[in-house]
Amino acid sequence: MSLVLYELLGKDDLRFSPYAWRARMALAHKGLKAEIVPCKFTDKAKFAFSGQDKVPVLVDGGETVFDSWRIACHIEDRHPGKPSLFGGPQARALARVVNFAVDSQVHLVLVRLILGDIFSNVHPDDRDYFRKTREARFGMTIEAIHAAREDHREAWTNVLGPYRLALREQPYLSGQSPAYADYVLFGTFQWARCASPYPLLKADDTLYSWRERMLDLYDGLGRKAKGFPVDG
Amino acid sequence: MSLVLYELLGKDDLRFSPYAWRARMALAHKGLKAEIVPCKFTDKAKFAFSGQDKVPVLVDGGETVFDSWRIACHIEDRHPGKPSLFGGPQARALARVVNFAVDSQVHLVLVRLILGDIFSNVHPDDRDYFRKTREARFGMTIEAIHAAREDHREAWTNVLGPYRLALREQPYLSGQSPAYADYVLFGTFQWARCASPYPLLKADDTLYSWRERMLDLYDGLGRKAKGFPVDG
Repeated sequence: MSLVLYELLGKDDLRFSPYAWRARMALAHKGLKAEIVPCKFTDKAKFAFSGQDKVPVLVDGGETVFDSWRIACHIEDRHPGKPSLFGGPQARALARVVNFAVDSQVHLVLVRLILGDIFSNVHPDDRDYFRKTREARFGMTIEAIHAAREDHREAWTNVLGPYRLALREQPYLSGQSPAYADYVLFGTFQWARCASPYPLLKADDTLYSWRERMLDLYDGLGRKAKGFPVDG
Repeated sequence: MSLVLYELLGKDDLRFSPYAWRARMALAHKGLKAEIVPCKFTDKAKFAFSGQDKVPVLVDGGETVFDSWRIACHIEDRHPGKPSLFGGPQARALARVVNFAVDSQVHLVLVRLILGDIFSNVHPDDRDYFRKTREARFGMTIEAIHAAREDHREAWTNVLGPYRLALREQPYLSGQSPAYADYVLFGTFQWARCASPYPLLKADDTLYSWRERMLDLYDGLGRKAKGFPVDG
């Protein structure tokens, strides 16, 4: 069976999509290899066959799956004999809660910290697209968001509180070994690491040592990625 | 084996502690009955044998357990043959993440909405204690917090976002049936329901219908509790 993952391509071959990182880690967790097809934001024609306009898209034989959560569930259900991405139906349901918390709360703050850096690192062909879509979304210029980023440091500290506290008691969000909820939050940190030199964590933070462990997984898959490992 | 749960007692026999509700629901989930010993905030001598000063405290035969999370884990591990409170180690770890998110984020907002009402409903003997401790914690009077509660409506809507979104896709936070993560958040809503007439959810909210299902569990354990079912 052939697996193909369409993922976002930035400047100088940077790969900073948090959602693609979730898919990459999920594939590695299952011991699956996929051919990677890099796509710029404006390469939408390349994956228009998926019937929508966002990467990542996974093509698994004849089946096309988009949306990182649906990709994870697809991989899990298609390969029940490999190590579970969740650890059972209750853990899958709770991973979905964590997934929504990261998307709707953590990303909302982090994007304020790194949007200017992401803009510096999108593919040159995507700069106009990125500026237009993001400035419409935020109702202000990328430069204004970037200039105000220090205002969001406290929110950044607070929004990570539950993860930080849980990691005082257990090495991974998913317990004694990493699973999909960890990949969700790790994708967030790879988004930053692969697009921004802005420091996000201090070395005494439980999230810092967790991230170190995550960076080492699967032969250093995350650590080897090109980026800006400023504080990791 | 005898089980005794020490829990908070309010005015007119109200029982509004969110942490006691977690323990009550966890016991019901396991089909366990406990003798309930109601304690005012200032009844600390009653459970001083636990070596600390907060309820709930569970006494299980010769063993004393405090802290709602530790009580849940104790019940789970002591009764492995009964329906699991978590659904496996990964789900337990993720329930811990949800537990921290509810405690550190949801409660932080909700307390601003209902603190004045809680003050009206603490046991008369506890009013001075409650005012002194809460006003020290918040650095303002209970009346000032109460007067400003409308300022926190938007934060209340936002902090519930992840749960609301997950409940669009699954009937319970824990999936197809309720488990401890559900009891954690349900405890939060019982805290409000048993202490405050302030409306918190609209009928078209996925959290509203989830709460209805939770209120019906275990022969209506939550619904039968004395309180202010203003919007439920």
